[in-house]
Amino acid sequence: MTSPFSRPGAAPFTERTPRVVAARKLTRRAERDKTGRFLAEGANAVEAALAHAWDGGGTVHELFVTERAAAQHENLLAVAEEAGVPVSPITDRAAGGLSETVTPQGIVAVCALIDRPLETVVAAGARLVVVLVDVADPGNAGTVIRVADAAGADAVVLAGDSVDPHNGKCVRAAAGSLFHPAIARVRDVPAALGACASAGLRTLAAHGYAETELDRIDLTPPTAWVFGNEAHGLPAEILGATDLAVRIPLYGRAESLNLATAAAVCVYATAMAARQPNG
Amino acid sequence: MTSPFSRPGAAPFTERTPRVVAARKLTRRAERDKTGRFLAEGANAVEAALAHAWDGGGTVHELFVTERAAAQHENLLAVAEEAGVPVSPITDRAAGGLSETVTPQGIVAVCALIDRPLETVVAAGARLVVVLVDVADPGNAGTVIRVADAAGADAVVLAGDSVDPHNGKCVRAAAGSLFHPAIARVRDVPAALGACASAGLRTLAAHGYAETELDRIDLTPPTAWVFGNEAHGLPAEILGATDLAVRIPLYGRAESLNLATAAAVCVYATAMAARQPNG
Repeated sequence: MTSPFSRPGAAPFTERTPRVVAARKLTRRAERDKTGRFLAEGANAVEAALAHAWDGGGTVHELFVTERAAAQHENLLAVAEEAGVPVSPITDRAAGGLSETVTPQGIVAVCALIDRPLETVVAAGARLVVVLVDVADPGNAGTVIRVADAAGADAVVLAGDSVDPHNGKCVRAAAGSLFHPAIARVRDVPAALGACASAGLRTLAAHGYAETELDRIDLTPPTAWVFGNEAHGLPAEILGATDLAVRIPLYGRAESLNLATAAAVCVYATAMAARQPNG
Repeated sequence: MTSPFSRPGAAPFTERTPRVVAARKLTRRAERDKTGRFLAEGANAVEAALAHAWDGGGTVHELFVTERAAAQHENLLAVAEEAGVPVSPITDRAAGGLSETVTPQGIVAVCALIDRPLETVVAAGARLVVVLVDVADPGNAGTVIRVADAAGADAVVLAGDSVDPHNGKCVRAAAGSLFHPAIARVRDVPAALGACASAGLRTLAAHGYAETELDRIDLTPPTAWVFGNEAHGLPAEILGATDLAVRIPLYGRAESLNLATAAAVCVYATAMAARQPNG
């Protein structure tokens, strides 16, 4: 395809161009919720967004690229063109304004929000779901979404006061996986747990002080793992509303694991157990 | 004990006080290697450093605290006093200069470097060792050290061009665990693998394109897990020098896991398998 930089008269958009100004506002959650749009930055995320849209799962409204990123990612621009997604050249400074990370990637898609209603996301037939309750750090949320995707989870539910999965740092940490498992956002945590139960999933709460250790339970049944806030864990009433609280055994002297590594251990142990030939 | 802030005439050290200036230089690797000292920042790290010194495993040369941190951590100051560690009050600005993180903790210990010679760290009887090859990000290295500690690993070896484990961001991510498993630094990666083999450990290389999947092998024998650089993985010659390359099965559409979550999955799967009643 023709690079947007080689078209005659196509001066790149600057940080003052109205479409860039509008896109930049999407770094704020309120604006994302109002417009139903968010920014997917970086080649991984853009590639996943385009593939997701191609599969009919979402919409990519437009794509911004710097000259350097356009040269690096010609294949992505070709995919965008084939899909009828407008591609606009931007300056490096404009790309910086669209980035929530220290190193702007120079390629950013404006996408339709990817979350869906809880009842369509957690449905009968699901075998592995991850529920995040009051998770505050977008990098953690994105890393857990990536782990959930790798483990073949059907869905990730961001419940309670959890961070918005469309946050730029979450998108970055998810490395494209944001578009893979079904994603729901729901304030009402008991409703999220109820949906899991209705879908036939056992709810397991990851809890550092639980009596039951991870390596002592049968991990083959369909399971929803529930993880709490990085500092405070799960509220007592949520713990009480799950089927079982489980702790990762600590064999050394560490007092805990961080959220993302704890989720990796629990979710992968479950995914691997469910697939064991004699499991 | 008496707070260092309540002693008559004890004005807090500023960022220009010679001992603070000397300590600040320890944020540089060259200075750490020259002096044999590093900074352990934060209550977790200071507590672990003092306990490690108490057990005869290391030395805490001195402790700096801000007024606010002194009020929050009276118990740690009492432990330091009992251990004969000098405690000095510092200003918030001085604490900022000793911190490599965005949010200074206000409590920083000057400690002797904790790494030991490879042959004492990887010795006969070891059952679980983690070898990091050319790992660049200090936060990743610290998170892996924390996971290794939690999983009861005997040692972590930082091999090749890996980051210095005494880096402030690594200390922070390790959350006290830096003082728990034995730690070695060694440029010569084949020497690290040779030490593992001599200690009777099977060496497993984590490799995204390996034929063998993690859930298809017996994880009960004593094992050294070998992880490569975040972007480039393990060099071919190192892969060839290990006993077996293993990949984490990807059940969804994620192309990979990040280093810390991949290490958590591999190391914990091994620790739990080795402790199964019928394992």
